[in-house]
Amino acid sequence: MKIALAQLNYHVGNFTKNTLKIKNSILQAKHLGADLIVFSELSVCGYPPKDMLNSQVFVENCLGAVKDIASVCHGITAVVGSPSFNRKRGGKILLNSAFVLSDGLIASVYHKGLMPTYDVFNEYRYFEPAQEFHTVQIEEKKVALTICEDIWNVAGEGMYAMNPPEVLAGLAPDFMINISASPFAWNHLPGRMRTLSENARRYSLPLFSVNLIGGQTDLLFDGGSAVFNPKGKLVDLFPLFQESLKVYDLDSVMNDPGRESPSVAEGIEKHKLILDALIIGVRDYFEKTGQKQAILGLSGGIDSAVSLVIAHKALGRENVWAVLLPGPYSSNHSVTDALALAKKLGVRHDIISINDTVTAIEKSLGKLFQGTNKELAEENIQARARAIILMALSNKFGHMLLNTSNKSEAAVGYGTLYGDMCGGLSVLGDVYKTDVYGLAQLINNDEEIIPVSTIEKPPSAELKPDQKDTDSLPDYDILDQILYAYFEEEQDPETIIGMGWKPDLVYKVLKMVDSSEYKRRQSPPTLRVSLKCPGIGRELPIEASYMGLKRLF
Amino acid sequence: MKIALAQLNYHVGNFTKNTLKIKNSILQAKHLGADLIVFSELSVCGYPPKDMLNSQVFVENCLGAVKDIASVCHGITAVVGSPSFNRKRGGKILLNSAFVLSDGLIASVYHKGLMPTYDVFNEYRYFEPAQEFHTVQIEEKKVALTICEDIWNVAGEGMYAMNPPEVLAGLAPDFMINISASPFAWNHLPGRMRTLSENARRYSLPLFSVNLIGGQTDLLFDGGSAVFNPKGKLVDLFPLFQESLKVYDLDSVMNDPGRESPSVAEGIEKHKLILDALIIGVRDYFEKTGQKQAILGLSGGIDSAVSLVIAHKALGRENVWAVLLPGPYSSNHSVTDALALAKKLGVRHDIISINDTVTAIEKSLGKLFQGTNKELAEENIQARARAIILMALSNKFGHMLLNTSNKSEAAVGYGTLYGDMCGGLSVLGDVYKTDVYGLAQLINNDEEIIPVSTIEKPPSAELKPDQKDTDSLPDYDILDQILYAYFEEEQDPETIIGMGWKPDLVYKVLKMVDSSEYKRRQSPPTLRVSLKCPGIGRELPIEASYMGLKRLF
Repeated sequence: MKIALAQLNYHVGNFTKNTLKIKNSILQAKHLGADLIVFSELSVCGYPPKDMLNSQVFVENCLGAVKDIASVCHGITAVVGSPSFNRKRGGKILLNSAFVLSDGLIASVYHKGLMPTYDVFNEYRYFEPAQEFHTVQIEEKKVALTICEDIWNVAGEGMYAMNPPEVLAGLAPDFMINISASPFAWNHLPGRMRTLSENARRYSLPLFSVNLIGGQTDLLFDGGSAVFNPKGKLVDLFPLFQESLKVYDLDSVMNDPGRESPSVAEGIEKHKLILDALIIGVRDYFEKTGQKQAILGLSGGIDSAVSLVIAHKALGRENVWAVLLPGPYSSNHSVTDALALAKKLGVRHDIISINDTVTAIEKSLGKLFQGTNKELAEENIQARARAIILMALSNKFGHMLLNTSNKSEAAVGYGTLYGDMCGGLSVLGDVYKTDVYGLAQLINNDEEIIPVSTIEKPPSAELKPDQKDTDSLPDYDILDQILYAYFEEEQDPETIIGMGWKPDLVYKVLKMVDSSEYKRRQSPPTLRVSLKCPGIGRELPIEASYMGLKRLF
Repeated sequence: MKIALAQLNYHVGNFTKNTLKIKNSILQAKHLGADLIVFSELSVCGYPPKDMLNSQVFVENCLGAVKDIASVCHGITAVVGSPSFNRKRGGKILLNSAFVLSDGLIASVYHKGLMPTYDVFNEYRYFEPAQEFHTVQIEEKKVALTICEDIWNVAGEGMYAMNPPEVLAGLAPDFMINISASPFAWNHLPGRMRTLSENARRYSLPLFSVNLIGGQTDLLFDGGSAVFNPKGKLVDLFPLFQESLKVYDLDSVMNDPGRESPSVAEGIEKHKLILDALIIGVRDYFEKTGQKQAILGLSGGIDSAVSLVIAHKALGRENVWAVLLPGPYSSNHSVTDALALAKKLGVRHDIISINDTVTAIEKSLGKLFQGTNKELAEENIQARARAIILMALSNKFGHMLLNTSNKSEAAVGYGTLYGDMCGGLSVLGDVYKTDVYGLAQLINNDEEIIPVSTIEKPPSAELKPDQKDTDSLPDYDILDQILYAYFEEEQDPETIIGMGWKPDLVYKVLKMVDSSEYKRRQSPPTLRVSLKCPGIGRELPIEASYMGLKRLF
C-alpha cells in the first residue's frame, strides 16, 4: 500500500481555497500511485476556526466541503479533518472528526477523544470527547486513525483518564495515522517527535503523522509531518514551514531501519527556526487578511532593524516602508544606523521629525503640566507622537503597521500603550531581547545587513537624555532568564529565587510582569514562537492582587 | 436547622481580604443562630482566578485559607469554595471543590462535575470533572451539595452527558445547596431562577443558592442568591449587587408557599440593572486595582455624558476629571453641552484644544500627504490627538482613562484604534447605542442631569464638517437589532435576513463586524452586561476569510 501525506497551508474559513488545494493534492497523489492520502486536523476549514464553530451554517459548509472532496476520491482513499455534528443526546453539539473518503463517498468516520484545553488550546469549548474508539478499514488494511492530542496521553499519566491508541492497538491494526494541528514553538519539535516515536514503539506499529504549516494570525504551524517505523525510529521528517506532499510504501516503512529523531540545538539552529517562523507568520498574516504592504518605525535600534529585515524577507522589498521618526532625544547614530539599513535593503524610507508634534502637545498641556517634572508622561508623549504619525501613514496609504517590541519589554510592560505598543501585528513580541540579538547575528551571518553599531550599542528608548534600558531594567541576560522561568516554565517566585537569583530582583521583575497585564491585554496579536507567548495561551486576571507568594495589597 | 447564605464581593488572589471577610461572616451567622453558612464558588480565592490556578503555590494558598477558615468553625458548619488537587492518576491536576468545615476541621469535600467551557467560561482548562457524586452530612441532615453548572443540565439534554443532581437526589437528601459564580447579564436572572426552580421542583427539595457580587475586571456578578421551596417556588431573593447575609429556617422554607420568580422587563427595569452593574463594575475595577481617580474625554455627545455620570456615581465627584478636547470640526453645542454636564455634576473639568496638535501633525506629514484628499486618515489624527492628551494627563496625574465607546460602535469598528478606543476600562462597550439612550433617560428620570440637547442631537463623531454617524452606519434602531441577532443570538446571516432585513444591509453590517475583529482584539477590557460582549466570551479568528454564508475572498 502506498500512503501519501499532504502537509499544507490552509486558510481558516476559506472553503474555496482549502477544498481546491485538497482536491489537487488528491489528484497529484493518485498520479504518484498512492492508495491513500492523509490531510491534517480540521483541514477542510483550517485551524483554529474558534467561535465560527458556533455557526451551524459554518459546520454545514465544512460537511459540504467533505462531500465535495469525496467526489474526487476514485481509485484513492483520502482522510480529511472536519467538525461534525454529535448525534448523541447530551454533550457538546460537535465532534472533531476524521473522515475517510473513497469511491466518491464518506466510507467511515473517526472522532477525537482527547480535547486539549490548556495553553493556546480550547477544544472542549466546542467538541464532545469521543468515548469509544474503533479502527477504520482502508483498502485491505485495518488502520488506527487518531487525531492530534489522542496520542499525547501515551503514558496514561497525563491530563486525561483515557488513552485512545491503547484501545485501538488492542484491535490489531496494520498501521497508525495521526492527523494533527500542533503549533510551532522553537523547542517543541523534539517533544512532538518523542511522542510520535513512543506511540509507534509501544504499539509496534508504523505511524504516519500529518501536521499543517502556516500562520493563523498569532498561531504558527511548522508542519514537521513524519513517518516512524514499528520500532519508533524516524523514517522520514518533512521540511518545516513548507507545503509538501510525499508518498511512502507501507512495506518499505515497516522494514526501514530508521534513525533517531532530531533535537534542536540552542544558538544558530534555534534562531534559524524562529526566523523562518516569523517570516511565514508575517507573510501569511498579510496574505490571509488580503493585505500586501507594511510600514514600521525604524529607530536605529536592534528590534526595529530585525523586524524590518523579517518584513523585507516576508513581503518583498517593494512592499515595506520604513519611517524614521527622530525626536528631541534621538542620537545621531539612531538616524544614521536606520538609514544605513533601509538603504542596504533598498526599502522605501522617509524621515519625519516628531519635534513639532511633541512641542504642540506639550504646549497645549502647558498650563496643566506647569510646575511638574519632566518624566514618564513626557516620554510617553514622544512614543505616542510616533504612533500617531505611523498610523496616519497607515490609514492614508493602506500599509499595515508592524509592531517591533520584543518579548522582554512586553513581559515587564516596558513600552508605551498606544505608542510603541501599536501595530496590526507584533513581529518580535514572543522573542526575548537576547534572542533578538541572536536573530541579528544570524541575519548578518554572510554579510553585514544590520549595521554592527545597531547591534553593539546599549539598548535605549531615547525618550530622555542619556537614557538606557538598564536604568529601569536588569541586564537583559538576567531579565530573560527570570522571565523564561516565569513564562515558559510557569515557576513560582520561590522556585525562581531557588535558582540563585536575589529575592528583591525576582520580586521586582515579577511585579513588573503582573502589574503590566493590562498593557498586554491591549497588545497587537503576537507571532508565537515559544511555548508561552505573552497574550496568547496565558490568561491572567488584571485585577488580581496576588503575585506568587507575595500579596501586593 | 438554620441556614445562612453569604453573598459577598471577593477580590481574586487577595487571600487576606477574602479570608477575613469569610471568617467575619461565619462569626456573624453564628451570632444570628445559624447552624450552617454557605459561601459562593471558589470563594477563598475569588472568581475567576484564571491561569493563577497553574501555580501550585497559589492552590496551596487556597487550601491554607480553607484550613484557616475551618479554625473558626466551632458550633457552626461552613461551606466554602476552593480549588483542590486531584489525587487520581490521569486527568487534570485540579478539582473545583466545595469544602464542608466544622469543629475546626475539614469534614468533607464535594467536587464539581460539569465544567462550563463556552462563552466566558473556561473551567475545563483547569479542572477535572468529578464522575462520582455523594451527599454530605451536615449536622443531622443529608445534603445534596452542588457547584454552579452542576445543576444546569437538569433536563439532561444540554451540553453534558451527566446530571449530578439526579444522582444526588437518588440518595434521599434533606435539601439542596448550589454554590455558584454565575455572571451578570441584564437578561440572565430569569433563566438562572428558572434553572434553580426546576431543580427544586423536579427533586422536591428545598434549594439554597449562593452567588457572589462584584466586578472582576470585565466580568460582573449580581448575586441574586435565592431560596426555593420543594415545589420550586421562590421563597426569597437577595438584593442584587449588594453584599448581604441572611438566615433561613429550614422548616419554614419547607412550608413557605413561595412565589413565582421575577422576570426582567424591557425599558426602565433593564436600564436600571445595566446602570447598577456598570457602577459596581467601575467602582470595583478601581478599588481592586488600587486606584482612585478617573479621567475621560467629554465630547458633548451622549456616550461620554453617560460614562461620566456612571464614573461620578461609582467613584465620587472628587475623583472624576472631565476634559473637553474641541477640535477643528467640533460644534459649539459640543462644548456648551459638555460644560453644562460637568458643572451640573460638580466635577473638575478642563478645556484643551487639539487644534495646534492636529496642525503640527498634519504639517509634519504635509509633504507625504500632498495631493491626497482629506479623509479617514485626517479624521483619525483628531481622535488620536485627543487620546494622546488624555493619556498624558493620565500618566502625569495618575488618573485612569475611561473609554466611552458604545457596543454598536465597537461591534462595527466605528472607532479609531489608539484614538477614541483608548482607555483602561470600557464603560459602555457592551451597551448598544439605543440602550445608552435608555440609560440617559433613566439618569434624567428625576431631574435633567444630562443636557436634553446632548440626548436629542443626532450622533456625530465631529471629525469632518457636518458629519453624522448615519453617513457611515444604518440608523442605530436598525443596526442594534441586527447586531443583537448576530452577537447575542449568534444567528447566521440567512436567519437574520429571514427576520425581514434586506440582504445588502445585513451583509454590510456583518462584514463591518467581521472585518473589525482586529480592532476589538486591542480594545480595553469591557464591562460585560449582556449575554455576548465584544471581546469577552467571543473568540473569532482575525485572519478568517469567512462570514456566515458569504465568502469574503
